[in-house]
Amino acid sequence: MKKKITLKQIAKELDVSISTVSKSLRNSPEIGEETRLKVQAFAKFYHYKPNNIALSLKNRKTKTIGIIIPEIVHHFFSTVINGIEQIANENGYSVVICLSDDSFDKEVLNMELLANGSIDGFIMSLSKETQFKGDFHHITEVINQGMPVVMFDRVTNEVLCDKVIIDDKQAAYEAVQSLIDKGRKKIALVTTVDYVSVGKLRTDGYVKALLDNNLPFDENLIIKIEDIDTCEIIIGKLLEDEAIDAVFAVNEIFAVTCIKTANKIGLNVPKDLAVIAFTDGMISKYSTPTITTVSQSGVKMGNRAAKIIIDRLESEDGSEDENYITEVIETYLVERESTS
Amino acid sequence: MKKKITLKQIAKELDVSISTVSKSLRNSPEIGEETRLKVQAFAKFYHYKPNNIALSLKNRKTKTIGIIIPEIVHHFFSTVINGIEQIANENGYSVVICLSDDSFDKEVLNMELLANGSIDGFIMSLSKETQFKGDFHHITEVINQGMPVVMFDRVTNEVLCDKVIIDDKQAAYEAVQSLIDKGRKKIALVTTVDYVSVGKLRTDGYVKALLDNNLPFDENLIIKIEDIDTCEIIIGKLLEDEAIDAVFAVNEIFAVTCIKTANKIGLNVPKDLAVIAFTDGMISKYSTPTITTVSQSGVKMGNRAAKIIIDRLESEDGSEDENYITEVIETYLVERESTS
Repeated sequence: MKKKITLKQIAKELDVSISTVSKSLRNSPEIGEETRLKVQAFAKFYHYKPNNIALSLKNRKTKTIGIIIPEIVHHFFSTVINGIEQIANENGYSVVICLSDDSFDKEVLNMELLANGSIDGFIMSLSKETQFKGDFHHITEVINQGMPVVMFDRVTNEVLCDKVIIDDKQAAYEAVQSLIDKGRKKIALVTTVDYVSVGKLRTDGYVKALLDNNLPFDENLIIKIEDIDTCEIIIGKLLEDEAIDAVFAVNEIFAVTCIKTANKIGLNVPKDLAVIAFTDGMISKYSTPTITTVSQSGVKMGNRAAKIIIDRLESEDGSEDENYITEVIETYLVERESTS
Repeated sequence: MKKKITLKQIAKELDVSISTVSKSLRNSPEIGEETRLKVQAFAKFYHYKPNNIALSLKNRKTKTIGIIIPEIVHHFFSTVINGIEQIANENGYSVVICLSDDSFDKEVLNMELLANGSIDGFIMSLSKETQFKGDFHHITEVINQGMPVVMFDRVTNEVLCDKVIIDDKQAAYEAVQSLIDKGRKKIALVTTVDYVSVGKLRTDGYVKALLDNNLPFDENLIIKIEDIDTCEIIIGKLLEDEAIDAVFAVNEIFAVTCIKTANKIGLNVPKDLAVIAFTDGMISKYSTPTITTVSQSGVKMGNRAAKIIIDRLESEDGSEDENYITEVIETYLVERESTS
């Protein structure tokens, strides 16, 4: 028997990207005619069948929700999954999870895999690479065929669907404001590179809080860390070069690295340096001193995403109704020793 | 259209357990005839079809591996998944993950869900409840139908299949021996309740190390924590009642709680109290002091489990060959500040 060929194999054989194959099979005008026909002919020869969601949706309910997240070694995503599972199980739904590993290709392949009859709808958070490329055809395609998609945390304005987010800008603003309220005047931002939507928003909130309080904005105090291994050196340099009295870090690892580096050069946290981290996880809870964090309410985010998708799946005309919701989950500051 | 009924719904309607439904549908002699016939009649009426793996296996390869793990907010399981993904992706396989949430019923339902044509084989770690009940019919059933299963970490001798484990007893022995080598004489074990196989083995290793070194074995020094919320109080009591000079904890949270509690009552770690944790995760790496751990090599475990299942799936008569492997992955001690 001839084995069923996959999207990935077609891409490899024809030396084109997975995205090109995927778009060609859907007759996308974005792909030149020659390539499109070549891909289609090849796929046909090997009996490749792109999924026909609309058809399968009519015939059955799998009572299964598919989740696609960028990574798994990440406390925030784990708590969102727990939140989804809670509501899903209460309503008799199962959950299957795929990881995009922050890769666009893996995200496309995973959606192809799950949409092929295994699930009724998707809950997903975009991979970094997808956000960077700005290519969302795999998602709009699924939605156009009538399968509901709920995005959470890492979302895009370019896809019309339900979304569950936090107000990253406002959350960052409030965190920085709380440092200012405690008398801190020279506050650094330790962040990642900008192409993930939430990173950009958090930076905006940081800048706005400074300006609203008539504090000078100094670009040298925004530290962008691309490689986690260089984190300690870069933060060490920041602490030695600039007389900062507070750090707002966009994740726990950056925050705990600030604390350890500060201790090494004789600074006391929180006396000399106050630290707040975005994302409440295990490190903040068990670090010494414990770290004040912005809680993203992962469980609540998961609860809401699951509720929205189940409501759509179970309403008679749910997946047709295009009054999409963007639900903003409230964040709150978990005050701990690093700012007290 | 009449919706397809699920295993769970049948169980609920007939007020029997999911396991009873599952066994009845397979004509298991464990279930009384009356119940068996009732379940079968009910399932037939609602057109419930138990999966027929043997049939579907002949017709296609999904090139997908299913993973079932007990929980996701757990660094060890996350690293195993990363290890599986690495090898799977290199070999053109996709991976889907389901969580049993340490529940027997969810494990059964997830296997039923995935075995229904979505995957070629399972990599799994048993739920606590499955280990406690000792009911493995859902796994043997899948294996008997020709679908390969590789178990890792939480395994059972009662199922014949490939397994990837660490030598928990030996790893615990070596950790305790390293404490003794550093001159520690009164070593406590902070562990969980016994029904998870690995917990029992780690306790055995602890006891053996003491006896081999002619140190007295004192049952009062074995602390079993069932509820994480009581962890601090119980450890506080241990430190106050017993003049211990070292703790071997079976997970990071117990270890970091020991350190924080010791600090509170004026003990210095490592001077007054040395601490080793089983499982190398984020807390140990970023705690102050950093914590010496037994690394379970999660990535390596995942790599090996994936390699074994792919070899079986790709060999001509792989899934028929019953020369099952139990591969023991080597652990090693990651020495950090808490024992130096």
